Amino acid sequence: MKAKVYVTLKNGVLDPQGKAVEHALHSLGFSEAGEVRLGKFIEVQLSGTDRAAAAERVRQMCEQLLANTIIENYRYEIE
Amino acid sequence: MKAKVYVTLKNGVLDPQGKAVEHALHSLGFSEAGEVRLGKFIEVQLSGTDRAAAAERVRQMCEQLLANTIIENYRYEIE
Repeated sequence: MKAKVYVTLKNGVLDPQGKAVEHALHSLGFSEAGEVRLGKFIEVQLSGTDRAAAAERVRQMCEQLLANTIIENYRYEIE
Repeated sequence: MKAKVYVTLKNGVLDPQGKAVEHALHSLGFSEAGEVRLGKFIEVQLSGTDRAAAAERVRQMCEQLLANTIIENYRYEIE
């Protein structure tokens, strides 16, 4: 199985890296680009076959390591 | 409209950050975790209403700025 984890900054948290990308897009002529937010996309290979158990373990991974839950949201899919 | 862009390292490209996360997961007791790959997840707000035109522009953004196509793959969705 494989877990796909998406970690994004919470609304209201400043994203200077996203701002930099936004300015760079404008400089390149992409005037239609509005707000840009940067997050992380994490793929984790998992052993085992129990999807429900794997989902719970991935939730624990996010809480303990993959996301900083003070400033970040996360969601995940098990494939 | 909003574009969601996923940028991932190509197969065969070393991912030391992913390796570090993998070791950290093992240290925390997540022994089921196998290979970990880290990528980027980018959300771009877009003005305009033409989805096909927007998709082509986002492809150009990826090629020119958002992804390093030598070592990274990208995919995107328009919402």
